[in-house]
Amino acid sequence: MDRSVGIVADESSIMKAVEPLPEDFDPTAVIKDPVPPVVENNGSVRGVTKMREDKSKREIVLGRNVHTSCLEVTEPDADDEMTGDRDAYMASVLARYRKSLMERTKHHLGYPYNLDFDYGALAQLQHFSINNLGDPFIESNYGVHSRQFEVGVLDWFARLWEIEKNEYWGYITNCGTEGNLHGILVGREVFPDGILYTSRETHYSIFKAARMYRMECMKVDTHCTGEIDCDDFKAKISRNKDKPAIVNVNIGTTVKGAVDDLDLVIKTLEEAGFSHNRFYIHCDGALFGLMMPFVKRAPKVSFKKPIGSVSVSGHKFVGCPMPCGVQITRLEHVNVLSRNVEYLASRDATIMGSRNGHAPIFLWYTLNRKGYRGFQKEVQKCLRNAHYLKDRLRDSGIGAMLNELSSTVVFERPHDEEFTRRWQLACQGNIAHVVVMPNITIEKLDKFLEELVVKRAKWFEDGNCQPRCIASDVGESSCLCALHK
Amino acid sequence: MDRSVGIVADESSIMKAVEPLPEDFDPTAVIKDPVPPVVENNGSVRGVTKMREDKSKREIVLGRNVHTSCLEVTEPDADDEMTGDRDAYMASVLARYRKSLMERTKHHLGYPYNLDFDYGALAQLQHFSINNLGDPFIESNYGVHSRQFEVGVLDWFARLWEIEKNEYWGYITNCGTEGNLHGILVGREVFPDGILYTSRETHYSIFKAARMYRMECMKVDTHCTGEIDCDDFKAKISRNKDKPAIVNVNIGTTVKGAVDDLDLVIKTLEEAGFSHNRFYIHCDGALFGLMMPFVKRAPKVSFKKPIGSVSVSGHKFVGCPMPCGVQITRLEHVNVLSRNVEYLASRDATIMGSRNGHAPIFLWYTLNRKGYRGFQKEVQKCLRNAHYLKDRLRDSGIGAMLNELSSTVVFERPHDEEFTRRWQLACQGNIAHVVVMPNITIEKLDKFLEELVVKRAKWFEDGNCQPRCIASDVGESSCLCALHK
Repeated sequence: MDRSVGIVADESSIMKAVEPLPEDFDPTAVIKDPVPPVVENNGSVRGVTKMREDKSKREIVLGRNVHTSCLEVTEPDADDEMTGDRDAYMASVLARYRKSLMERTKHHLGYPYNLDFDYGALAQLQHFSINNLGDPFIESNYGVHSRQFEVGVLDWFARLWEIEKNEYWGYITNCGTEGNLHGILVGREVFPDGILYTSRETHYSIFKAARMYRMECMKVDTHCTGEIDCDDFKAKISRNKDKPAIVNVNIGTTVKGAVDDLDLVIKTLEEAGFSHNRFYIHCDGALFGLMMPFVKRAPKVSFKKPIGSVSVSGHKFVGCPMPCGVQITRLEHVNVLSRNVEYLASRDATIMGSRNGHAPIFLWYTLNRKGYRGFQKEVQKCLRNAHYLKDRLRDSGIGAMLNELSSTVVFERPHDEEFTRRWQLACQGNIAHVVVMPNITIEKLDKFLEELVVKRAKWFEDGNCQPRCIASDVGESSCLCALHK
Repeated sequence: MDRSVGIVADESSIMKAVEPLPEDFDPTAVIKDPVPPVVENNGSVRGVTKMREDKSKREIVLGRNVHTSCLEVTEPDADDEMTGDRDAYMASVLARYRKSLMERTKHHLGYPYNLDFDYGALAQLQHFSINNLGDPFIESNYGVHSRQFEVGVLDWFARLWEIEKNEYWGYITNCGTEGNLHGILVGREVFPDGILYTSRETHYSIFKAARMYRMECMKVDTHCTGEIDCDDFKAKISRNKDKPAIVNVNIGTTVKGAVDDLDLVIKTLEEAGFSHNRFYIHCDGALFGLMMPFVKRAPKVSFKKPIGSVSVSGHKFVGCPMPCGVQITRLEHVNVLSRNVEYLASRDATIMGSRNGHAPIFLWYTLNRKGYRGFQKEVQKCLRNAHYLKDRLRDSGIGAMLNELSSTVVFERPHDEEFTRRWQLACQGNIAHVVVMPNITIEKLDKFLEELVVKRAKWFEDGNCQPRCIASDVGESSCLCALHK
């Protein structure tokens, strides 16, 4: 079991490591049995999808542990290559998995992911290890990259958010969270003693950033729509005028799809006496950062306004097989973050050093196919379908709210966890939501509504159970509980 | 150009947002021309791969900007769908790109990526948006995930590094950097006032972590092999006994492939009077974390020793189309990081919230096919080929060094940037390196050597140029410059 024989003897050679190696040393010698001993007691059967047997233990320590069945990695038998058994086993696992993915994709309503895409033309690239190491604008010596696609995509977003090519810096991130982590980090580097302000309905990644970066963070109240309450914001910044303000503005909150009014936030800062060189605004565009530009009357996200950075998710409205995102900031700001790393022949101003080179190609492909006009059509469709869903819910006596600039329909949380999981609804307290994305059709919504109405009649039939009151979450006018209807 | 008409009028409705919308408001109305105006002056021709015209500007601000040619995203014409022109254009771009990737993959030696993999069986999954939101061990409501594969992979690594299933926590990261960021963050949360110690030849992501997390960081000297100098380490920790130590141990440095002696680091801490509850060790296993367990006499990375976390890259030795990694830590430590996020029905102890669900499947597939024994064979081959390369270089009069537990061959940096780029060598100061991975054959090494020897004769033929001295980088015994040969 102990393979570390020889460590003590090696110490002296390590301390004077340029000396010749001991004569008997064979660096290519490998240990006899490379299979580590199993460090747990429970037996396992190859090829059987088994339940984690330590489930109950994790449950206590880490919280709700829904049946997680794990696909064990097993050691191939010596004759596997000959018999082909292993290949057959793996093919069957993958086929079953694919079937379950199809089923889960069909019944999906709760998360803001556009599951409707066809990247068949890009399958030919899966064979390559594409890595955009470091800065997108500076070539590294590693040749298997996709910077040319990445910069093309960034330029498209720079145009959308109105910043000149030679004034912005950005990169394709691994997800919305990375964009937020980057934006807040840039803000902190610009104002090391700045206070972070953000509404209490902000995505948790912003609070995570504050903790990671050891920043003072103040939560600002929200209206029941989910938007930041600028009266409270003003009160809070006015009490802390001695320190610069780093502000996160939500362009669509996670739960209610509420859009903070960027113009009002800026006006509030100005009125409280913050000059433009005393605040930094990061716009968390998660989902709506890419939808809002196409909605009339929406407050515009633009670098012509005094903002520092904008991030948006790539796998949400665009649709992508894996999470990704776009982060754009001002070139002047990013220099404070940069560090010259000769090893990569690249400066590293990103959070991650190695970056998925496939994601930019997926994005490039979709942006090229759809264009601004294609996105406009899809946004229109989503907003129309979201209104349809909200109206149908309310017609059925179910309390529901839809923010005016949003396709996130909030409604009373179903009483049945099974139903919630089946439709993959995201829930918080008494509310659940459906995010109407381009792949959510009227037919799918009808099917969902039909099921919900039938289920609901059942939940409430014996009178023991009542529709939930959601007034404190979304306001009385959106609630249809016994008290408020 | 200004699409934000109506913002001021909207303010009152936003402040009292539950009031009915203005009668004339049509949330599904979209702006007339969704194509943003071009915010720069240079014209661009569709379909032409154009050079970035602001290159010179970036060069000044961001450093070396090698010719970055960008593939512009262009707006489809109205009739594109009918003519098929756009599809044809995109297909041709992709075909050209694929060809260049094949060429670049063929001539690749410098970065530790195993480019030899065949994931054809997984192409069927590219159609799905697979996202492992939050914690791998706790199911979220989003159903299109691959946790069952992820946990299987994690269990395999837990067995490799000797920690029981119910005592570890971990996840599949986006890259080695994320593993390091996580490990150091866990260390800081366990010891908020701890000082971070790491050798000066450490990967830059550790120094980035120190800056991000606002930690005190002390650089420790190294031997010329690249290993941490434990005498200097002892001196530094002895002067700071009042604060806990957070130590990064390199299981293979980036440039020289040097392996810090974990046992000696632990012994040094103990001798300096640090009890086990006063230090936290993170092992950056980047590349060698997966190779070392199969090398005889290598100091063993094991959770039976007082270490806190281990990370390793998945795209390096295993090989994967996109960067990914594995991070394993003790379950007891991760609770300090956890936050309950009801929205995801998941705790978030990861750095990123949304995570690529394809990466775990790639890893699961390769681990299952190769098994521990398969990796053993590949490690053996790599070490043997690395020795071959080092010997051949020295036989040709080229100074070279190979650490005993490593497949990274360090040698004098070529005098020709063109040659360096062609073989995608990573360079630092006077040295370059080749990382011998499973896809690097003797034939490829011979071809490289042959070219290098021919080129070298040319560089030095007129006597103006001399072989570089690399004694200060790798020690006199490895140098073959005029002075040391």
